[in-house]
Amino acid sequence: MNQPDRPNVIEAIRFDGERLQLLDQRLLPAREAWLEMTGPDEAARAIADLVVRGAPAIGITAAYAAVLAARRCKGDEAAWQAALDRLERARPTAVNLSWAVARMRDCAKRSGGPDPERLFSEAREIHRQDIEANRAMAEAGAAQIEPGSGVLTHCNTGALATGGIGTALGVIAEGWRQGRIGRVFADETRPWLQGSRLTAWELSQLGVPFRVIIEGAAASLMASGQVAWVITGADRIAANGDVANKIGTYMLAVLARHHGLRFMVVAPSSTVDPQLESGRGIDIEERSPAEIWRAAGLESEPPGFAAWNPVFDVTPAELVDCIVTEAGAHFPPFHFA
Amino acid sequence: MNQPDRPNVIEAIRFDGERLQLLDQRLLPAREAWLEMTGPDEAARAIADLVVRGAPAIGITAAYAAVLAARRCKGDEAAWQAALDRLERARPTAVNLSWAVARMRDCAKRSGGPDPERLFSEAREIHRQDIEANRAMAEAGAAQIEPGSGVLTHCNTGALATGGIGTALGVIAEGWRQGRIGRVFADETRPWLQGSRLTAWELSQLGVPFRVIIEGAAASLMASGQVAWVITGADRIAANGDVANKIGTYMLAVLARHHGLRFMVVAPSSTVDPQLESGRGIDIEERSPAEIWRAAGLESEPPGFAAWNPVFDVTPAELVDCIVTEAGAHFPPFHFA
Repeated sequence: MNQPDRPNVIEAIRFDGERLQLLDQRLLPAREAWLEMTGPDEAARAIADLVVRGAPAIGITAAYAAVLAARRCKGDEAAWQAALDRLERARPTAVNLSWAVARMRDCAKRSGGPDPERLFSEAREIHRQDIEANRAMAEAGAAQIEPGSGVLTHCNTGALATGGIGTALGVIAEGWRQGRIGRVFADETRPWLQGSRLTAWELSQLGVPFRVIIEGAAASLMASGQVAWVITGADRIAANGDVANKIGTYMLAVLARHHGLRFMVVAPSSTVDPQLESGRGIDIEERSPAEIWRAAGLESEPPGFAAWNPVFDVTPAELVDCIVTEAGAHFPPFHFA
Repeated sequence: MNQPDRPNVIEAIRFDGERLQLLDQRLLPAREAWLEMTGPDEAARAIADLVVRGAPAIGITAAYAAVLAARRCKGDEAAWQAALDRLERARPTAVNLSWAVARMRDCAKRSGGPDPERLFSEAREIHRQDIEANRAMAEAGAAQIEPGSGVLTHCNTGALATGGIGTALGVIAEGWRQGRIGRVFADETRPWLQGSRLTAWELSQLGVPFRVIIEGAAASLMASGQVAWVITGADRIAANGDVANKIGTYMLAVLARHHGLRFMVVAPSSTVDPQLESGRGIDIEERSPAEIWRAAGLESEPPGFAAWNPVFDVTPAELVDCIVTEAGAHFPPFHFA
């Protein structure tokens, strides 16, 4: 399926109304392979297994999966709702997932039941709005950056994580195009290596020069004076501006403050959870320790070995200098309603 | 060869005067294999290739390799000195390497030439002194820790990195034995994974429970209140107390200060470089970016990809609360002469 209104060359989610295709992000950058699915449970498994990841991309995938569910259920609304419940449980931290599922439920309610064609329009609209939000964020974020600045980013927040050009990485691509960003560093982002695998792949596709560092080198990089901004995405933003994002984000925010750098978070307003007063209420997903041991050459955790593998952390609002949504740049004190 | 005076069960360097055996640390924890070498250049290569690593262990290996060089050179002092030059260049950051080589040169000078038996005694003495220093540091360091404390360590600083029970990890093992340490966390330590491979293996051998975390989770761990001390080794300590150590150490020191934790550095006095006024003069080794890309499933760096891979960093003395050497615990302001 063509999406002629997509401004970027990279896309990771394709849907023709019947078949959902996902670029398998577990295999990048070594291999570009697509998985095709026709049922909602396959899509839920793809979300849980990180075939697709990134809060906005998970939301879009879930919206398309809700269309697949409607086709499967053939009007059986209870079965459709149950499929959406399973989708919603695929990942706990990103709010965009439950936001997109709730929007699909609303659409069905308005149409008197899960009508596949109406739901397809709604899902396409979610995707289209994300593309537009990405563009607006890229411009609003880039405008904050002084010409020639160095930036450090974390995880992957580009086309692979969203429906469009990305959130933080969209700002970086746009900032580079405008000459506001002169140097790009990307954390490799253990344990899943979204930085060295996905961000590196995207930036190389876009022709933006970059250097990957291990997280342990972020403090040295900051002390070297080569970066002015740390720019990350978010998986959930509380009303007070506390930010849940990939593990390591809070570390970067503390280090940025120590070194006098600025810290920008870029996320669509679907990431904001205004019901959530502060970051204390956010459920932090822990994944299998196998993600840690695999790198050490171990297929499983040997007796006596143990690991703690939280995959998100919470950055308190007081360490955040700027939150960019499609509505523009927000500055402290943050109040999202 | 037996070393009956070694208090610990783990050893990684064996020398019978003719053959140097090194436990190949590149293969742990998946496999325990020993490499045997009879020439100094093989030993230099083993140091460069990280078969053996850890500042004190590198020093001991170089001392034994100087004996091998003396046997090879059969009295040709120029050839012996040239072999020692090559040894000294195997790794640039750890001062213990040049310290051990200088000590072997002094011994030869005192004996009127590179006499293998005299040099063998000297090398054994270097090894024996490291074992004793380890014991003294373990006790002095553990004495600083309140009963039941949680600690976080970085890299590997145990028996695999030294001649004895270790530096920082020796403090942790002793602190655990005394009940002063109640919880042990270890950074996995990218890119070489000394934590998840070597420290995890050692602690499991010693029966000390631990959990490995990715570096990106260190800030979250500190915020959780589970650790009171960060304890690391050092590769070089300047006269003013600035500490060069494994990349990520400086990050931990900044994070520890932010969270109100204490930061302890444990290293034998051979690690102190009193000629060096501050950390600014320390040569920071950069290793191949391949160490970063390998984890991402890439055999080589694809076109358009780039990485920065410094393997040490410098922690300014003002972030260090305590430096433990075999002479005891030192507190700020530090003045090493």
